[in-house]
Amino acid sequence: MIKFTNEELKIVKKLEILKNEAGSHSPSVITFKQKLPEVSIRVDACFLSNPYATELFIEYFNKEILSSGKIRDLLESYPSQNGVIAEILAAFMNINPKNIFIGNGAIEIIQAVIHNFTEKKIIINIPTFSSYYEYVKDGVEVVFNELSKEDHYTLDIGGYISLVKKHQPDTIVLINPNNPNGGYTKIADVQRMLDELSFVKNILIDESFIHFAYESETYKLVSLTHLVERYPNLIVLKSMSKDFGVAGIRAGYGIMRAEYVAALLNNGYLWNSNGLAEYFFRLYTRRDFALKYEQVRVKYIMETLDFIRELQQLPWIKVYPSMANFVLIELEEGIRSTEFVAKLLISYGIYVRTCDDKIGLKGQFIRLASRSRQENEYIISSMKACLAMNRMPDLIHESVN
Amino acid sequence: MIKFTNEELKIVKKLEILKNEAGSHSPSVITFKQKLPEVSIRVDACFLSNPYATELFIEYFNKEILSSGKIRDLLESYPSQNGVIAEILAAFMNINPKNIFIGNGAIEIIQAVIHNFTEKKIIINIPTFSSYYEYVKDGVEVVFNELSKEDHYTLDIGGYISLVKKHQPDTIVLINPNNPNGGYTKIADVQRMLDELSFVKNILIDESFIHFAYESETYKLVSLTHLVERYPNLIVLKSMSKDFGVAGIRAGYGIMRAEYVAALLNNGYLWNSNGLAEYFFRLYTRRDFALKYEQVRVKYIMETLDFIRELQQLPWIKVYPSMANFVLIELEEGIRSTEFVAKLLISYGIYVRTCDDKIGLKGQFIRLASRSRQENEYIISSMKACLAMNRMPDLIHESVN
Repeated sequence: MIKFTNEELKIVKKLEILKNEAGSHSPSVITFKQKLPEVSIRVDACFLSNPYATELFIEYFNKEILSSGKIRDLLESYPSQNGVIAEILAAFMNINPKNIFIGNGAIEIIQAVIHNFTEKKIIINIPTFSSYYEYVKDGVEVVFNELSKEDHYTLDIGGYISLVKKHQPDTIVLINPNNPNGGYTKIADVQRMLDELSFVKNILIDESFIHFAYESETYKLVSLTHLVERYPNLIVLKSMSKDFGVAGIRAGYGIMRAEYVAALLNNGYLWNSNGLAEYFFRLYTRRDFALKYEQVRVKYIMETLDFIRELQQLPWIKVYPSMANFVLIELEEGIRSTEFVAKLLISYGIYVRTCDDKIGLKGQFIRLASRSRQENEYIISSMKACLAMNRMPDLIHESVN
Repeated sequence: MIKFTNEELKIVKKLEILKNEAGSHSPSVITFKQKLPEVSIRVDACFLSNPYATELFIEYFNKEILSSGKIRDLLESYPSQNGVIAEILAAFMNINPKNIFIGNGAIEIIQAVIHNFTEKKIIINIPTFSSYYEYVKDGVEVVFNELSKEDHYTLDIGGYISLVKKHQPDTIVLINPNNPNGGYTKIADVQRMLDELSFVKNILIDESFIHFAYESETYKLVSLTHLVERYPNLIVLKSMSKDFGVAGIRAGYGIMRAEYVAALLNNGYLWNSNGLAEYFFRLYTRRDFALKYEQVRVKYIMETLDFIRELQQLPWIKVYPSMANFVLIELEEGIRSTEFVAKLLISYGIYVRTCDDKIGLKGQFIRLASRSRQENEYIISSMKACLAMNRMPDLIHESVN
């Protein structure tokens, strides 16, 4: 059991209020700084983002936008329309621009697709990213496919295909790797699913964490975007926030059948990219940037693997298998996740996501992001100390505070 | 008649293609640079934006974000959620935060409101900003109220109220001042309308250009936002792009009844602000910024008045009355607007909006934005030369080229 001083208990109360206000998501660090100034965040391990990619982007941004004075254009002028940015991506990704929809973050595309194209029934694997069920319109039936704890919350593809055939939904969602556990479904299994489920109108595959997954020892990028022409019911969504470390920019894309892109653009989404996002998308498609990005992507994957190995050595926690840049951790021995999260934050300045609000998880869970190597080391040593505290007799514990 | 060399004619053709691709809006300057590099834009008089406000914003941005190194946070981290930013605005605007919806540009709010709350019939004054009729859902009847050329395209409030009573729409739209002509409806008239039209479910007032309008000699700001509590059917929309000169940031807000805000946030729009927009909104509510902004707002209004007076002196054009930062100009003596726009662009690098695609305008029209004093002077002298060319005999004209 984790103990708190009276001062700390006050902060715990405030933390709970802040979390409730943010609904099924975590309050942002900016909101945090404003509303809970007594807590100083040293490591944001709630935040799913490659810090080395952020550094790379800032290096380009400094050189090409700030030093050149182009920043004024970027702030002052209207960015290009959706279709213009789609064209830039199309050439790079070798996809017809008519199949590309640019989003103000992937979440705008989740919203657009689910509001416009999901009419009757949606099947969602849980645990999941909550917006997938929160954004459905009134009258749409939501069927939850509870991933099995015994299978480490990974998808049993055969059972899933049978379930979809039984329920006959118009929309299914697969986040790959999944959030919040990082469970990965191999491309071969996804293709089997696509082959067997051609009757489903919308198969949403969310590849927001796909840059951290791999099927070969060289960590080669995997993706399904090229299959949209072959499977017209496939919709691939991609946030750029995580792998490129630019959540503040709000950039994402969706690859989907041309009729869907046309329908969306026909009555909306014209100028939904800002100047920073347009610069990012142009950079994303450049060979010089792509080569450097590949280096920081692989570097981060390798460090994340080290981080996970270290976590697996810690006592009283269970680390679930992950192919993403985060891990789902189950706290054992009666440790409560809200208390553990509060202690890490108050005593160590480490901001971690509690998973209490995640439906489909049975137990005390937290989700921990991999950060820079230095930050990961700090997380490991703090977790160690925090977990050790749990085992200390009350007397010693109280004198520590 | 305006003449072109063969080289120029090729550019004119490309211009037409570019304009067609952009639909009922103008291609952005970035798109322009990319697709028509042979034309160099010296003054973007298509662009409705206060350049002095842009300078003020950049001054703050340099000092507070770039020099301090906070730029990394802004690019890397998730911005605050919609409701958190609404709270910041609420305190400044003295409006309940439950009535504030933050948009990724005003256009996102136009789309959200019209998609979600307009069910049957909408009345739109024309000429107008095209998204208002383009974004209506299938099955919604659009009634155009054609503003009268004889009345200089200003709104006859009495006639308008009668028309709305006759048609019984669920939504009406008033852009005030109107785009593309700048026609202004006084607050007293709008209030009369609100009093008489309580049966209309949604009265949309678009105040995107309201900072350029005034009813007193001190140019004091006018606005209807405070009336939302009194008239629950009033929805005030506001783009920040024009008056604050930050179109690249994508920032806007809507003031509307709490049920509408709740309905929108209930299934979407959670992280629709980017890091730059959040910084802008926080700045917008600060007294030090507000005081400086007021100075550049009034400065720009006064220069715009000078600009309009100069334009009124030019031959062969008719300048329509405007309370915005642009004027609608009718070309006379057989001058064609596409040709005039092409000539200004090719020979003088001045980018002006043709109004050929604006329904409800009868004649050859362009819309001309007020820019900095220096740019306005250049626009005037170039217009003069361009108009004079129209009167030159063909022989002389050809030898000039």
